[in-house]
Amino acid sequence: MAGMRPDLSGVDELTINLTHRVCIGDLPTRAARQFGDRPAVVDGDVTVSYRELEARSNALARGLIERGLVRGDAVALQLQNRWQFPVALFALAKIGVTAMPLNLAISPSDVAYQLADSGVRAVVSEAAFVPVLAGAFADGPAEVTEVVVVGEAPSEIAGVPTVPWDAVVSDDTSVVETVVDDRDIVHCLYTSGTTSRPKGVLTSHVAVHIGALSSALGLGLRPDVAHPVQPIVLPLFHVTALDALMLPTLLVGGTAVLLRGFDPAALAQTFVDHRVTHVTLLPMMWAALVAQPALTDENTSSLITGLYAMAPMAQQVLAGVRARFPGAAIILGSGQTETTPASELQWNGHQGVKDESWGPATVSTDVAIMGADGGLLAADETGEIVYRSPQLMEGYWNNADANTEAFAHGWFHGGDIGHLDDEAVVWFTDRSKDIIKSGGENVSSVEVERVLLGHPAVAEAAVVGRPHERWGEAVTAVIVTVPDAVVDADELIEWAKERLAGFKTPKTIEIVDALPKTATGKVQKHVVRSSPK
Amino acid sequence: MAGMRPDLSGVDELTINLTHRVCIGDLPTRAARQFGDRPAVVDGDVTVSYRELEARSNALARGLIERGLVRGDAVALQLQNRWQFPVALFALAKIGVTAMPLNLAISPSDVAYQLADSGVRAVVSEAAFVPVLAGAFADGPAEVTEVVVVGEAPSEIAGVPTVPWDAVVSDDTSVVETVVDDRDIVHCLYTSGTTSRPKGVLTSHVAVHIGALSSALGLGLRPDVAHPVQPIVLPLFHVTALDALMLPTLLVGGTAVLLRGFDPAALAQTFVDHRVTHVTLLPMMWAALVAQPALTDENTSSLITGLYAMAPMAQQVLAGVRARFPGAAIILGSGQTETTPASELQWNGHQGVKDESWGPATVSTDVAIMGADGGLLAADETGEIVYRSPQLMEGYWNNADANTEAFAHGWFHGGDIGHLDDEAVVWFTDRSKDIIKSGGENVSSVEVERVLLGHPAVAEAAVVGRPHERWGEAVTAVIVTVPDAVVDADELIEWAKERLAGFKTPKTIEIVDALPKTATGKVQKHVVRSSPK
Repeated sequence: MAGMRPDLSGVDELTINLTHRVCIGDLPTRAARQFGDRPAVVDGDVTVSYRELEARSNALARGLIERGLVRGDAVALQLQNRWQFPVALFALAKIGVTAMPLNLAISPSDVAYQLADSGVRAVVSEAAFVPVLAGAFADGPAEVTEVVVVGEAPSEIAGVPTVPWDAVVSDDTSVVETVVDDRDIVHCLYTSGTTSRPKGVLTSHVAVHIGALSSALGLGLRPDVAHPVQPIVLPLFHVTALDALMLPTLLVGGTAVLLRGFDPAALAQTFVDHRVTHVTLLPMMWAALVAQPALTDENTSSLITGLYAMAPMAQQVLAGVRARFPGAAIILGSGQTETTPASELQWNGHQGVKDESWGPATVSTDVAIMGADGGLLAADETGEIVYRSPQLMEGYWNNADANTEAFAHGWFHGGDIGHLDDEAVVWFTDRSKDIIKSGGENVSSVEVERVLLGHPAVAEAAVVGRPHERWGEAVTAVIVTVPDAVVDADELIEWAKERLAGFKTPKTIEIVDALPKTATGKVQKHVVRSSPK
Repeated sequence: MAGMRPDLSGVDELTINLTHRVCIGDLPTRAARQFGDRPAVVDGDVTVSYRELEARSNALARGLIERGLVRGDAVALQLQNRWQFPVALFALAKIGVTAMPLNLAISPSDVAYQLADSGVRAVVSEAAFVPVLAGAFADGPAEVTEVVVVGEAPSEIAGVPTVPWDAVVSDDTSVVETVVDDRDIVHCLYTSGTTSRPKGVLTSHVAVHIGALSSALGLGLRPDVAHPVQPIVLPLFHVTALDALMLPTLLVGGTAVLLRGFDPAALAQTFVDHRVTHVTLLPMMWAALVAQPALTDENTSSLITGLYAMAPMAQQVLAGVRARFPGAAIILGSGQTETTPASELQWNGHQGVKDESWGPATVSTDVAIMGADGGLLAADETGEIVYRSPQLMEGYWNNADANTEAFAHGWFHGGDIGHLDDEAVVWFTDRSKDIIKSGGENVSSVEVERVLLGHPAVAEAAVVGRPHERWGEAVTAVIVTVPDAVVDADELIEWAKERLAGFKTPKTIEIVDALPKTATGKVQKHVVRSSPK
């Protein structure tokens, strides 16, 4: 900092920090005072009020301090969508400890890698994951000295002592006041690794807070206009559920209904039991939801904004969702872990007009298109989609090369190719690694996928380039059909040929039962690419 | 900062800053890309698009750099509500220079005090204020070396050379990229001084950005739901117009219509010429606006939120405003320079229910009530209204004692007395300095004013304690009547006696033509107190 500064010689450091800082641990403190007995988190039969959320977060924070954790340490969270997740997140934030939510679908060896890479001191887990941890600790627990377990657990896991959650929480639920800096790391999420070894993304308190405000603004979440209720189906270890859904809901005094795994009937029941105002789902979840008989005109009418994320939605599915929720905006949100996370969001007015776009940048986000020489391109020119924003990660952990590459030419590179139209709406072409180079031409796998998804028998499609002697790469499609569809590969190739240039038409189409996906629903193209049927 | 940090050894400092920072100078850069040719600022016949706002800000920033200004310097802005104001603000923010907007109603000697106290290097002014500056420079220009003038000006003012605005702006309008820290001081506003010598309030980029997001959220300003249009009548040198009205409007791509001074007919014409969606006015401005014949059901129907600020609105005026704008929420917003500024905002649902409250805290703001011993009080207990929030000022300039007092017991003290109800809604009792101590009892001047304002003949009322031999202080009211009202002091004392305890009833009521006010419309109680008619 430079220039005019106040003389605060009569004010102690903790006061300066507490009165000025951006700290996610302050969110439940403010909310407890303002929203008191309103339901903050619903987890099955358990409802946690705002007052309880704050008290339990303080009690856990005090327990963790007693166990020796200090500002700058890191702790892994290996938890399903349950009330202990936000309590642990806030407890750690309050004492300046970095939370490292673990993807629950990864293998013990990947868990071991992340524990060692991040140097976490403890793991907060639950009974169901004891076997995974045992596997992860098989070659030594790195710096992990303790596992806090929700539910029943053995007294140790591969030599690492355990302690029950209930034994950690303090009897003292009063507010915890420690120094935490705006740019301390509130969480480290490992990217899901569609293309490479997971990288730890370091995210600051200020990025999460501005991200939550921007998401609340974009989704129309407000404290005064209809108490917001948001079911959270996506896993909380994913940045979308954590920072774009749960935190904005809690910021404005809404209710986050936590669901574990995706059960369409259970989600539909949430609409029956609550006045759901906002929900974000993967396209396939939307398709399953609207087929649920429990949904009625009455219990769907409360929805204000329905977001789909991670993938484009087939036009017929989108039409079905809009028909089932005629009073809501059904729009696409885009982002990634590195942008905490919402970087683009369609406007309500884009429905039916620019459905296949990503929409414009969110407020606080600057999005531009960069050419190969590092210069920014004009409207309608295609290049790398790049970002500047206070929502950006501080950087990747323990990976200077990845940081140098990610911030080349003064902008953050998200790894996507696209263009801006004359209204600054982002149109995604493809992941930069998923552009297929076939016979000297560049083929967008996404463009080919869109054409295939237009066939009534195709439910999912992944298009990749596979090595080919003559073409360099051969355009190859792997598809999943809708139930009971009767279609063969030749018919689909004919369909594609009528709608695409010859060099873009798949040379081969494989029909499979399921596509390989990450835990958060992204198709793993590198697996598709390297695994012929 | 402590703990996990990324290795950014391959990334230069400017890149790290540009990709991550919170800087108000980035607002027009993002907005220009996203909103391009939309009208950002309307100033009479001049409309400045987002692209032009960015280009002109860059051109001025480059000109100021050429003239030797560097990060950490400060520059005074002595400008009416005209397009040059936001351009100058953004230009200074882009290069890390603190803007010091000058109150246009203060005397040359007060201008001289603020110029000397803040150490500004230059003043951006306009032709109309040359005489004020000449007076301010009479005893020497402190550290001011140059005055940039919009319009005609002599070549020097009391020995300080002038340069025309047009001669400062560079031909190069490309984006300016310099290092600016989140907590650099974006502006220094001197408080209006109802009780003491003005104090310079130092406000960071992060406070202004989070304040703008919170205000946009609270007012329902969104980029996609009806293009927001907001006339700005309050002066831009005041924190409300600057940070709660203009910046949130520009953040979401709306249009700020700048008006100079308050002319009810001109404001009504804005409703005729534009689809006005949001407006914030003082109560007396609302009263004058709704009497304008140019307002029709058609041109008032676009209003979404109408805010009143600075003072409570008489019930009959409020009813008249709601009748004229039946589709809008007409609510009270409260705040102060030190809280950047919105700290409380009524919810739409409080209309007709809690009209006389301040409403709950804005998101990002923690508000509590503190007892005399520094402990926080429970609901319904009356004490000092205190704050914690990333929107808070960094501190007062050059005034360690004021900072020590303002941040006593770990919270910021706004100088107001009140309580929270069981819904955490703030009820203001009085300014702590305006509590009257009469005959051993505490009397709230605001309570007495409310009763007097309930009389149909009373337009404005200020109640103070004046020294009295027997009572210590005597409750004294100074009132302004509505036009053509026939009422005398005795009749008003009778009215009050029927509605107030004996010790609260004014001993004396004086009827005057006008109350002494600051430039921003606040009654100067210290003047009322010390000046018997």
